[in-house]
This record gives sequence, C-alpha cells and structure tokens, in this order.
Amino acid sequence: MNFVYNDVKEAYERIRPYVRRTPLEESFSLGDGERRYFFKLESFQRARSFKIRGAMNKMLSLSGEERARGVATISSGNHGSSVAYAASLLGISNAEIIVPKSTPQSKIDKIHYFGGKALLMGDDYDQAHELGMSWIEEHGLTFIDAYYDDPLIYAGQGTIAIEILEQNPEIDTIVVPIGGGGLITGIATAAKAIKPEIRVVGVQTEACPAMVKAYEDNIFYDTYPSAPSLCDALVGGIGALSYKLAKDVVDDFIVVSEDTIGRAVSLMAKEEKYIAEAGSCTTIAAVLDHSERVGGQNVALVISGGNIDGKVLTELLNKY
Amino acid sequence: MNFVYNDVKEAYERIRPYVRRTPLEESFSLGDGERRYFFKLESFQRARSFKIRGAMNKMLSLSGEERARGVATISSGNHGSSVAYAASLLGISNAEIIVPKSTPQSKIDKIHYFGGKALLMGDDYDQAHELGMSWIEEHGLTFIDAYYDDPLIYAGQGTIAIEILEQNPEIDTIVVPIGGGGLITGIATAAKAIKPEIRVVGVQTEACPAMVKAYEDNIFYDTYPSAPSLCDALVGGIGALSYKLAKDVVDDFIVVSEDTIGRAVSLMAKEEKYIAEAGSCTTIAAVLDHSERVGGQNVALVISGGNIDGKVLTELLNKY
Repeated sequence: MNFVYNDVKEAYERIRPYVRRTPLEESFSLGDGERRYFFKLESFQRARSFKIRGAMNKMLSLSGEERARGVATISSGNHGSSVAYAASLLGISNAEIIVPKSTPQSKIDKIHYFGGKALLMGDDYDQAHELGMSWIEEHGLTFIDAYYDDPLIYAGQGTIAIEILEQNPEIDTIVVPIGGGGLITGIATAAKAIKPEIRVVGVQTEACPAMVKAYEDNIFYDTYPSAPSLCDALVGGIGALSYKLAKDVVDDFIVVSEDTIGRAVSLMAKEEKYIAEAGSCTTIAAVLDHSERVGGQNVALVISGGNIDGKVLTELLNKY
Repeated sequence: MNFVYNDVKEAYERIRPYVRRTPLEESFSLGDGERRYFFKLESFQRARSFKIRGAMNKMLSLSGEERARGVATISSGNHGSSVAYAASLLGISNAEIIVPKSTPQSKIDKIHYFGGKALLMGDDYDQAHELGMSWIEEHGLTFIDAYYDDPLIYAGQGTIAIEILEQNPEIDTIVVPIGGGGLITGIATAAKAIKPEIRVVGVQTEACPAMVKAYEDNIFYDTYPSAPSLCDALVGGIGALSYKLAKDVVDDFIVVSEDTIGRAVSLMAKEEKYIAEAGSCTTIAAVLDHSERVGGQNVALVISGGNIDGKVLTELLNKY
C-alpha cells in the first residue's frame, strides 16, 4: 500500500472526461489588502461533492469482468451518491449502495436518482458495514472505498490540487476539510510534488477531531466518537493510509468550533451566494477564527460539497 | 436601429475570452418522465449576472479614444456592477456608475469592489437619470445602455442562446425572465435563427407586467408602475428595441405571482442548492404554476442572476 504523486497524475488524465473542472472563485467578503482567498467549489462537482473523483478513478481502473459484476459501497452520504453516479456514467449497471435500515427516504431517493440501487442492511452504520462487506464478498462485487486505504481513491481526490495550481499558480496555501483524511492526503501529496513550498492546512470540527487526536495520542483511530455536529460528512474515524501519510505532507491542523462553522455556512450563502455543506465550511471557519495561523497570501479554501439539508440551511441563516 | 442574429454571432466571438460559459445543469427536482428542465446558470456569470455580456460587447466595440475617455451608466444594480467589472477587465480606468443619493452603502461598496466609481446624483432614479445623462454628455463618456435600444447590448445578451444550444442541442423551449426585454429579445432572435422550431417563452412578475401590458394596450411603456416586488431586477418599463422586436420572436408571455416566485427561490436553494435572485426565479415559477403552457420536452430555464439580498433570502427560506 503506497501512494505517490504519479498516482494522482494518472488519475487526472483518467477521470478528466468524466468529472468537472470546478471553478476556483475569489471570495467577495474574505480577504484584505494582504491576503486573497479563493474557493475551490467542489460543491459544483457532479453529484455536488468531490467524492466522484476518487470513485471514478477506481471504476476506470476495473477490468471488463469486474465492471460487469458490479460495484458496491456502504454510505448514505456523498460517497454513496457519487459511486452510484459514477457507475451510471460509465454504464456499470449494477451499483449497490448499502445503507442502514434507518436511512431517511430522502437519501434513498437520492441514491436512486443517481442510478444506484439502495440495499437496506442492519440497524446502524456498524451493522450495515459488517453485513455489507459479507454481501459484497459473496456476490463478487468490487468494493469502492470511501477513504480507508485504496490509493486509487486518494489519487482521484488529489486531482483537485492539480486543478487549483493550474487555475492559479500563485496559490501558496490550500486549506482542506478533514473527515477520513483521503481528501487532504491526496491534495497535499500532489500539491507538494508540484510546488514544494506550498502550505497545506487541514481543518477538523471540534465535534470529532479524530486525526488531530490520533497524532496527539499516537493511536490510529479508525473509529472515533462524535459530539453532535453540523458536519455529517466529517464525523467518524480516519483512514489507514491517511493516518500513515498525512502527518508528513500536512503543515498544520486546525480545530474549529461548530458555532463558527454555522456562521461560515451563513456567510457563504448571504455574502458569497453559494450553498455549501457545513463540513466544507470548516475551511472558511478556520479563516474566520484563525486567519494568522492559516497564513498565506493567495489561499485556496476547498469547498468539498454542496449537499446541505434545506432545513439545516434555513436554521443557520436565521441564527447567524 | 436594427438587430439581427449576425450581431449575436459577432458578439459571441468578441466577448468569449472575457465572459464565462455558464453551466447548463439539469434540475434535480423539476421534471418528470416527459419533461426535463435545465438551468442556464447566469448566476455564476462574472459579477453574478448576464449583464456583463452586453456591457462587454459594447465596450469591445469602442475606439481607443472612446475607451480612454471612459464609460458610464446609470444603475445601482446588476448592470452597474457589470459595467464596472467589464471596464476593469478591459483596463478602461474611468468607469462612472451613476446612482441616486439614496442608494444603500452596500450597493456602492459593490460598485467599488468591481472597480467602478460611484457618483451620487439626484434624489431618486428619475433624477439620477436626468442629471446622469447630462453629466455623461458633458464629459464625453460613452453611455452603456442597460436594455433601451443599443443593438450591441442586445447582441451580448443573445449569446446565451448560442451557448444553450451548443450545450444541449435537444433544447426545444427556452424560458426567459423579462425586465426591460433586452435579454429575451437577444436570446429569442439568436435561438430562432439557429433552430427555427424552438419555442421561447417570456415571464414577467404580476407586480410589473410592462411588456405584456404594452402588447395588450398597443402602447410602448418606457416606464411602468410597479407594485411591491421581490424582483428588483425586473421592475420598470421596457426598451424601445425590445418593444419593436419581442412580439415577433417570443412565442408566449406568462405572468407569475410574487408568491410563486418566492416559492421558487426557496426551492432553488433547498432542493437544487443554488442561490438565485428572485427575478431569475420567475422562470421556475412559470414551470411550477403553468408547466403545460410552458410546454417542451427539454426546457432551458434562464437563471439570469444570483444577487439576492441575504435578508430576503432568509425570509423566503422561512416562509416557503
């Protein structure tokens, strides 16, 4: 299990025809004379999340026989939708998205919308995972990892760094949300290979700072408890590959409060006119509360997804 | 004063390096087995509105001497910002945006943000217009028309039709908001030249149905009273050129209620995850209340801008 910049370069060429080159847009409201901030809007990626980059890279690497048998994953969120959508774009007709029985109908509808088949297994995520992995093995499906340890997934996510530095070579700092760590590990590995002096800063919510704690405690937390959080895309443990690699390629880890994250979602909608999910807005929250520590003069903030619940959005616009 | 498809073709080549080819995105929530709807997202255009297309086309047609003297317009809204921004992109250093003294500071800040100079004149829009036009003449500036009768402006706006039909040649119906009428006249003229069987449907708010009434009454309403409206970009009279031309190229005019427009803004944010201004959402409102009359199987809804006030957005998300 290894992962290097060349994997990202290969992914970039491979997935290019299928994923969107998302805009890198300067912020209206952040920044001053000294610093400029740019949003890398993966919220406008296909299926509204960066997740399709990794999923697509993985699926494009499968043999004809593997494609014919089909793919599967265990996720009711962005990764599940992205796997379903990537499969349907590639004509892989069997895409099985395993979710717990408690999954709300709206999420199941979304999986169907994107061309996947939702399979309900187990009472919670842990059970769904256990039952799902046996199911996948039994049926000879290819498991599409969300972030755990598949270098092809990390490589797909890392293509964001290539785009950012092509779109604005002056970017000197990239700020990235951390959930499982695949996104930041992919981005940082590629960014440092292209521009060694670049800084990469990771951000976690205070509700679930799994990676920060993992490095503090020197323990690989593949699961981690979460306090209630707006950032459903970020909670849980980290990946084996990211635990191994992130510490060497990420310059700083910042933890932000749920309150500032809520404020960031509202600012993004009211001032910038973009809808972004809370997990994505951790990067903005880091700038709001720690702009000196984030540093940089031309700073890219990765806005990793746009799937926020309408009710949650409304509440945050009222509150902040 | 004439305006034909060739003007739009020329504009398309001319403005291409400076304006954004905005996405044409399929709706998640509208549509059924029979009909598909696509948003043409001019809300992601530079300065968040289609207006830069016309302004840019006009400015690129100026002589060196005219550019050196500078440009001006009278508008505190999207047109004003777009003129300022287009000028700054072209290195026209003198861009004077004339606005009434009552203009809120936030709008003045926006003009400055986009590189323009805000000049405050008169107590209301009418006075600003009168004083502004004399000022522009006195100082030898080039007036950048918003929609009244400059074919170069209409031609710039019409480039949207070329993009739509390149992005999806199967589009059979284009739905367009009507304020002054420059946008729909430009789009309809180009669309029918490219694909004669295409239908173009215009939408006005019930608060100010100036064009509908103009054709009903056979009177050119260059001003028109407005009831209170969410659609600040649409209220007022129509252009001389659009009055002359629109009736021949537009297939139907639909009037929508302010209530449905508010509902459409909310749907756009909560379901589609896009922020669009109320005037733009008239096209969605037309589908919500009159889908049969809108017709079509592959329908493009022009989302003309994304500049909605944060407070108004929040109110609409609460209400609908």
